[in-house]
Amino acid sequence: MARNKLTHFDRGGAARMVDVGLKPETARVAVASGSVRMQATTAALVRGGRAGKGDVLGLARTAAIQGLKRTAELIPLCHPVRVVGVDVALAVSGPRARPARVTIRAEVHAHDRTGVEMEALTAVSIAALTVYDMLKAVDRGMVIEAVRLDEKRGGKSGLWRRGGGRK
Amino acid sequence: MARNKLTHFDRGGAARMVDVGLKPETARVAVASGSVRMQATTAALVRGGRAGKGDVLGLARTAAIQGLKRTAELIPLCHPVRVVGVDVALAVSGPRARPARVTIRAEVHAHDRTGVEMEALTAVSIAALTVYDMLKAVDRGMVIEAVRLDEKRGGKSGLWRRGGGRK
Amino acid sequence: MARNKLTHFDRGGAARMVDVGLKPETARVAVASGSVRMQATTAALVRGGRAGKGDVLGLARTAAIQGLKRTAELIPLCHPVRVVGVDVALAVSGPRARPARVTIRAEVHAHDRTGVEMEALTAVSIAALTVYDMLKAVDRGMVIEAVRLDEKRGGKSGLWRRGGGRK
Amino acid sequence: MARNKLTHFDRGGAARMVDVGLKPETARVAVASGSVRMQATTAALVRGGRAGKGDVLGLARTAAIQGLKRTAELIPLCHPVRVVGVDVALAVSGPRARPARVTIRAEVHAHDRTGVEMEALTAVSIAALTVYDMLKAVDRGMVIEAVRLDEKRGGKSGLWRRGGGRK
Amino acid sequence: MARNKLTHFDRGGAARMVDVGLKPETARVAVASGSVRMQATTAALVRGGRAGKGDVLGLARTAAIQGLKRTAELIPLCHPVRVVGVDVALAVSGPRARPARVTIRAEVHAHDRTGVEMEALTAVSIAALTVYDMLKAVDRGMVIEAVRLDEKRGGKSGLWRRGGGRK
Amino acid sequence: MARNKLTHFDRGGAARMVDVGLKPETARVAVASGSVRMQATTAALVRGGRAGKGDVLGLARTAAIQGLKRTAELIPLCHPVRVVGVDVALAVSGPRARPARVTIRAEVHAHDRTGVEMEALTAVSIAALTVYDMLKAVDRGMVIEAVRLDEKRGGKSGLWRRGGGRK
Repeated sequence: MARNKLTHFDRGGAARMVDVGLKPETARVAVASGSVRMQATTAALVRGGRAGKGDVLGLARTAAIQGLKRTAELIPLCHPVRVVGVDVALAVSGPRARPARVTIRAEVHAHDRTGVEMEALTAVSIAALTVYDMLKAVDRGMVIEAVRLDEKRGGKSGLWRRGGGRK
Repeated sequence: MARNKLTHFDRGGAARMVDVGLKPETARVAVASGSVRMQATTAALVRGGRAGKGDVLGLARTAAIQGLKRTAELIPLCHPVRVVGVDVALAVSGPRARPARVTIRAEVHAHDRTGVEMEALTAVSIAALTVYDMLKAVDRGMVIEAVRLDEKRGGKSGLWRRGGGRK
Repeated sequence: MARNKLTHFDRGGAARMVDVGLKPETARVAVASGSVRMQATTAALVRGGRAGKGDVLGLARTAAIQGLKRTAELIPLCHPVRVVGVDVALAVSGPRARPARVTIRAEVHAHDRTGVEMEALTAVSIAALTVYDMLKAVDRGMVIEAVRLDEKRGGKSGLWRRGGGRK
Repeated sequence: MARNKLTHFDRGGAARMVDVGLKPETARVAVASGSVRMQATTAALVRGGRAGKGDVLGLARTAAIQGLKRTAELIPLCHPVRVVGVDVALAVSGPRARPARVTIRAEVHAHDRTGVEMEALTAVSIAALTVYDMLKAVDRGMVIEAVRLDEKRGGKSGLWRRGGGRK
Repeated sequence: MARNKLTHFDRGGAARMVDVGLKPETARVAVASGSVRMQATTAALVRGGRAGKGDVLGLARTAAIQGLKRTAELIPLCHPVRVVGVDVALAVSGPRARPARVTIRAEVHAHDRTGVEMEALTAVSIAALTVYDMLKAVDRGMVIEAVRLDEKRGGKSGLWRRGGGRK
Repeated sequence: MARNKLTHFDRGGAARMVDVGLKPETARVAVASGSVRMQATTAALVRGGRAGKGDVLGLARTAAIQGLKRTAELIPLCHPVRVVGVDVALAVSGPRARPARVTIRAEVHAHDRTGVEMEALTAVSIAALTVYDMLKAVDRGMVIEAVRLDEKRGGKSGLWRRGGGRK
């Protein structure tokens, strides 16, 4: 259910970076996910790559970790956060799955005054874009889908889980 | 139909930035799109903002233009490209649309040796992430959907349109 | 009144980033301002834009917030600081003001070992440069003026206000 | 005299990066200047530094050259430009000048489809901010003044000089 | 044999970015190399990783490609260059080699007015630093050695090869 | 003696940014060094520059301080760290030294959950690359040598010194 206020704007409608200076530094976790839908033959190339020639998923994981550190440079009203840990997992669907996909999951940990949802979502988006870049020569029609927050822990709002609402 | 080769890897499977030095500089265009699905009440806040208090769409458009200039920093094997023109359009669905959405379209022009698909897709992704960031205080469940290339012109491969294949 | 030492240089004259590791983390505030002098007809275009076509001031505000996060990358001896809140306000002078101006004010909050004067001054400078960029097609002669610190609070030196000296 | 159009906005008022793809690549030059007004005792410290201990002006020049390469990252609607040459000159006023000042002049050369005014103005602004940063421990009241374009050559609009108008 | 002039300084000793605007755009190639000396047990871990758990060399290669695109941001007087192709190769010495090493070779291609030596050397340095980072938990004493230009082609000075001098 | 685990990889071999969230923030120091070997005539030019025309060492020091702030952007699995102090010292060998060299030493201080070895090594590498860039017009054969960690203090592992091992 929506609250009344978009905190990123003041009363006059001007954008601002919300002051979080009075919030305590606490452990923060965010988990996001997404996927890249592709042709079955494209997914087969990705699976082949894992066996030693052209590690698409490994490279996308590296890009995601590196890119999320720049979230505050990319998203105008985001606070700079010192991330303390990141796990990014990518997987390609099996040979019979239709539609074929690469799925991405990013978990970001910080110890700060503000959450790290944007870092997790940025990691997933950059991983997805990198997968697209490496495979676009064979499949321009790939689609990035379902980039979303799955879970958020820490801070005043506590635990939030997709589907389950705030607890 | 998929070609056999992932050009971003050499024969041994090592990632590389493909040499485009022998390609001529030509006009390049790429169009990408995507959307952010949200609650109807959230979309109503966005529509309200356009009337003068809190311009979510304007801010996301600025972030997209600024962010796409850094595509080559974010996507490891992307070539740096001198973009010569960018249009980013965002729109919010009307009061009765279900599901409610913000839709994003980015058109990028360059005059270079390589295409600008990644720049257009990066612009859409950053716009979507910025929309999410500004509205997340009221709607954490928003989902970024259908980020994809719609059209590509210029270069050896000529015109490509989603649905229509290569022409 | 000037103290004797430029702390950014060691005894031999070599530049260094001063060690602030022993300072406690405290709340820091800095307020800076500046303006862009322009032709009256240019200011009229800016006023017109606020009514819905071409929001020069909104875009400059976004640029300022985004740019100040990179202060430590731009100013060689600046410490990286985790900014916790930012407000940037821009206003255009009324139809009869001579000279016509856009005025800029930035207030930056942090909780750190060192002050945020440079972040506030960088925000004002980038806002002013962005205003210039968007209007230069109609008025190349605009001048950025009076970029300065107005107030600083927090840290060992306490409150400083322009005009009033240290208190 | 002002033209009617802010080219950085489309008809609906949306910000965009203007398409310069049809313009030819030509030699471009821009010269900008500005100054930092300071206490006479502060200027004396700068003059002292030139003799070997603490080279404020040299460090500000380096910061300016390095920073202007990032103009397109800082100014949202600026095109990325390949700068081909830069000269930045800083000078401190003599012992009797009142008010005392550091003056800055930046000349930027490019061979591109768009001008380099913003690069020259950004160089001057970053040099000024760096001077402020290095001297702020002794003189918080310094003011950055008169940052402006002095000359512009190349492109369709030809030569422009402050005072002299377009020729 | 040394020429008399350091072109990165003007007659008064001020640093500048040399104007290359009059040079034609030509094909440029630079090859650089270097190595990281390590304990034999550390090299064994790297070899093990290639067989599927922890690909140190692949990750360092990605970092090198991504990092070299930022050479002009890191090296103050470097011109921004549009790189058109990059190959980075890393190899670990065999089980009996003493001292054990990871060797790095980077080849960079551009089509520009200035050479790409700095891009190739930056790629090697960043690859070496990344190797160090990933292995430092087991071997802090590793040493980065012999980072150097091996070959340079294109531009007025033509072919240069280490050992062979200019040809 | 090598421990068994490369902490930058999980059990499946996937790269990750290790979670340091549970470590306390403590004072951290790292000292690194390296050198650039060059022709004796090149070193003579550097010595000459210190006397007032072309300060190669000063410029390299600035580049090192500025560059190390971006360590986490360059090295994929590095944590972002708030550096609180930096000293970079460069020296050129005397007229009779053979081989001639510029030596570099960087000391970095932070107050964080993780060490700053990578920041110190990055500072040395960027200083060395900058020295190379400024002198390459007269001496392409220069070699960057012996870039290494000399000392590390703070954190769970306490004091480490090259040669002396862990204490």
